[in-house]
Amino acid sequence: MTTPIRIIGIDPGLRRTGWGVIDVLGNSVRFVASGVVTSDGGDELAPRLVQLHDGLDAVHEHYGPVEAAVEHTFVNKDAGATLKLGQARGIALLVPARRGLLVAEYAPNAVKKAIVGAGHAEKIQIRMMVKVLMPKATFDTDDAADALAIALTHAHHRGVASGRIARAVAM
Amino acid sequence: MTTPIRIIGIDPGLRRTGWGVIDVLGNSVRFVASGVVTSDGGDELAPRLVQLHDGLDAVHEHYGPVEAAVEHTFVNKDAGATLKLGQARGIALLVPARRGLLVAEYAPNAVKKAIVGAGHAEKIQIRMMVKVLMPKATFDTDDAADALAIALTHAHHRGVASGRIARAVAM
Repeated sequence: MTTPIRIIGIDPGLRRTGWGVIDVLGNSVRFVASGVVTSDGGDELAPRLVQLHDGLDAVHEHYGPVEAAVEHTFVNKDAGATLKLGQARGIALLVPARRGLLVAEYAPNAVKKAIVGAGHAEKIQIRMMVKVLMPKATFDTDDAADALAIALTHAHHRGVASGRIARAVAM
Repeated sequence: MTTPIRIIGIDPGLRRTGWGVIDVLGNSVRFVASGVVTSDGGDELAPRLVQLHDGLDAVHEHYGPVEAAVEHTFVNKDAGATLKLGQARGIALLVPARRGLLVAEYAPNAVKKAIVGAGHAEKIQIRMMVKVLMPKATFDTDDAADALAIALTHAHHRGVASGRIARAVAM
């Protein structure tokens, strides 16, 4: 009996950081859990980053993923927003790396391409495909759905689940 | 006998993060130590952030500052550079905050204004004033000098050393 590879996908954001955990075994993927870690917008920046850190670290402690994938979010034209995002993203990369996980990064277009088969897919298509690939997946928010899509993208790119995903995409 | 307030100033950067530790007692400031934490440009982003984290955390462990100040670095027009800086800055804010320190943030102009007395001061003027304020200060790099200037700015803003700094600036 082979042990599944447990992957965590993370969609970083200062206010809401989405996370999704999946198991990959051979050509199949299985939903484990998903959620969102939030920080209190009324707090100063530094304690907000601690909130994100501690929340993400607790998710790692509880689910014990062995590989991580983080969205390399599109850089927009608002430098202040980019700086904020970068700070949250720094935490999203740090937490798994400190635990010794390899951390892969995927651009949004790579996620869309892997999940929907087209780089210009809409958010609703991503959510639908996550449900097609993992019918038992539950997620309340776009952030959690995006995080699951990032985890699936990593599964696809590492080759383990490519058959399963390719079939589902062709449906 | 009063206990000095130990302050760490941090000038964040992905390749080089400067740090400077000072003691404030009444109206006087005293140099304790300064240096730079580096990350290996040949590594992936996530392990580089771990290098910055572990280096900064070791500095906190060794010197035991009780307050922290981080430069709110100017946001330039290169979004990729801003994202990189943001990620390093996230770590620079996280490390002291996780240790329970209050973390203040100062824009570069606020640092120049507090140290040199003018918001448009040059880097060389900052270095000179750091030496005037703390003749025993040693620093090999601009990053360490900037970090000491940020620590001095915090001392100035929290009111404890304002007299000493104001006198030195007026010299």
